Amino acid sequence: MNYKERQRRLLRLIEEKEMDGIVVISNENIFYLTGAPLNCDKFLYLSSNGNLYIITNELNYQEIKDSVEDINVIKTENFVEEIKKLGKRIGFENKKISFYTYEELKKDLELIPINGYIEEMREVKDEYEIKQIENSQKITEKSLEECLKEIKIGMSELEIVAKIEYFMRIYGAESYAFDSIVLSGIRCIYPHGRPTKKIIEKNEGIIIDIGARYNGYCSDMTRTIFIGEPNKNIIDIYYAVKYAQEEAIKNAKPGITGKELNEIAINILKEYKLEKYFNHGLGHGVGINVHEGPFINRKQEKKLKCGNVITIEPGVYIPKIGGIRIEDIILITENGNKNLTSFEKTLIML
Amino acid sequence: MNYKERQRRLLRLIEEKEMDGIVVISNENIFYLTGAPLNCDKFLYLSSNGNLYIITNELNYQEIKDSVEDINVIKTENFVEEIKKLGKRIGFENKKISFYTYEELKKDLELIPINGYIEEMREVKDEYEIKQIENSQKITEKSLEECLKEIKIGMSELEIVAKIEYFMRIYGAESYAFDSIVLSGIRCIYPHGRPTKKIIEKNEGIIIDIGARYNGYCSDMTRTIFIGEPNKNIIDIYYAVKYAQEEAIKNAKPGITGKELNEIAINILKEYKLEKYFNHGLGHGVGINVHEGPFINRKQEKKLKCGNVITIEPGVYIPKIGGIRIEDIILITENGNKNLTSFEKTLIML
Repeated sequence: MNYKERQRRLLRLIEEKEMDGIVVISNENIFYLTGAPLNCDKFLYLSSNGNLYIITNELNYQEIKDSVEDINVIKTENFVEEIKKLGKRIGFENKKISFYTYEELKKDLELIPINGYIEEMREVKDEYEIKQIENSQKITEKSLEECLKEIKIGMSELEIVAKIEYFMRIYGAESYAFDSIVLSGIRCIYPHGRPTKKIIEKNEGIIIDIGARYNGYCSDMTRTIFIGEPNKNIIDIYYAVKYAQEEAIKNAKPGITGKELNEIAINILKEYKLEKYFNHGLGHGVGINVHEGPFINRKQEKKLKCGNVITIEPGVYIPKIGGIRIEDIILITENGNKNLTSFEKTLIML
Repeated sequence: MNYKERQRRLLRLIEEKEMDGIVVISNENIFYLTGAPLNCDKFLYLSSNGNLYIITNELNYQEIKDSVEDINVIKTENFVEEIKKLGKRIGFENKKISFYTYEELKKDLELIPINGYIEEMREVKDEYEIKQIENSQKITEKSLEECLKEIKIGMSELEIVAKIEYFMRIYGAESYAFDSIVLSGIRCIYPHGRPTKKIIEKNEGIIIDIGARYNGYCSDMTRTIFIGEPNKNIIDIYYAVKYAQEEAIKNAKPGITGKELNEIAINILKEYKLEKYFNHGLGHGVGINVHEGPFINRKQEKKLKCGNVITIEPGVYIPKIGGIRIEDIILITENGNKNLTSFEKTLIML
């Protein structure tokens, strides 16, 4: 893991802005910089001389202590007071910190916003990170494969989630990238809907949007499948969404902006008069967070780079009719991209 | 659901502080006030005239729209700009809002901190809420019961989690209150540790700390069980922790402070010279969040009230030896408390 190199990049920011250090409160950013467990309450302080301090409470002290090397782990009931002992002019994550913590810190400190500096670093994945995302994605695909063998009319959305998450754990997921989404019939119109006790009926579509977490890294995949035979209209929509997704993937490469890529999918859906039912962005970065930069939507002027891992997930949601979404994750490479998803996209009718 | 009554209480604060309205960003607080889905990005605005507005993006618009009544649902790409149209002198959750959002809002608004006003309201549960927590707890217990039938030497911590979470879903959990904790052997010393591929070996202890989420409400329970026969030392610790837990429960009633209740458990552990291995608070409130007020630890001077639902969970963690934690949730009642947990606490040796 390139912790030292990542820390060096932050040290350059500290030097440039003439700060004494940077306080990091986002668990994902701390994990990225040190490997410390994602789930513990803590602050990280990186001092201009390169020293690292993790400030935590008694509850999490031992776990953190046993999981990091070369880091001073401090046990306290007052994180803010400890930070004040370590520096005066301090960089902070202005997009993450709560207003309350900010107010507490600023009483004695000069606080310099670092905006999304660490998140920006995280957008370009190194080899180790790509490997973890690939492994996470393999778990996700294997779990869906196993689950599809068991889906039947009469099961509830929650039962399907139960099975998928069971398989994800069994295949090695340490947890889930997000709350698994399984929606059926007309409930498929909610892009981020939650599974319920609703029973799967004959000829209904099912949107399955799932991701494992493996060694801290997320995966993300959506497939829309059918129990029995959907009506012709839905089949046409399925193929339109599939076409939009595949064309967007073909065009994903270094230099294209999120806005341009989003436009490619929209233009194809326009041909089918479906663009007004596509009510979210085309994709987002995936890493330690399941939603992170770079974002792929109509506002993003930023160019994609080698090492970005992004989802491509057009969707069409028609009230009272149903919804279709198809989502892969891809790695932007020098010559274009590598699809990290191998799960089939042909229309599945169970 | 008492949404109207809860909103009226907030309106009284608005009147008292002469505000135009309050903006609420915490998903849990919005759920408490309106029943809107927990998982969607949104702001809630309650105006001094009683009107409610939920401001969200296109992605979540339809789901929110279909789930609430008598609320104006606004679709926008810029939440902050919409809030600015609705009032000038506005209350805000200073402990929840990010510094960044605060800065954006304060450009044109007078912002009044409301501290933990809504969280404070949430500490006293009404009948409906208690029912949901009870149901959630039943799911948790039934799941552990089923899982215990299947735990064997040679299984991994993750496999046990897979089974428990599977049962929770099957028994009706919409999701989990928190990342399930299953730790074995010397890994039991991490109070909030994460399950791994570690294999369960003969005579090891296993800490299982789990909770379902049902209709938005959490449950929380910990049991420490054994595969085979633990050594005498561990058995003694088990009974000391059990004794501390039961004595604390006996004393939990309206009027006692979190500090005093915590002290009761500590004093018992002192008799066994174990108090220095009890490195976290005795408990916390449980509701829409699995960790909410009132907190039960050595700093809390606040008195418990009728309607509080709290955990009582002493633990002893001895490096290189192992850990024991036993946790129930109880409801504070007029005359004392009602234990919402019925899972046995006698030493289980599988």
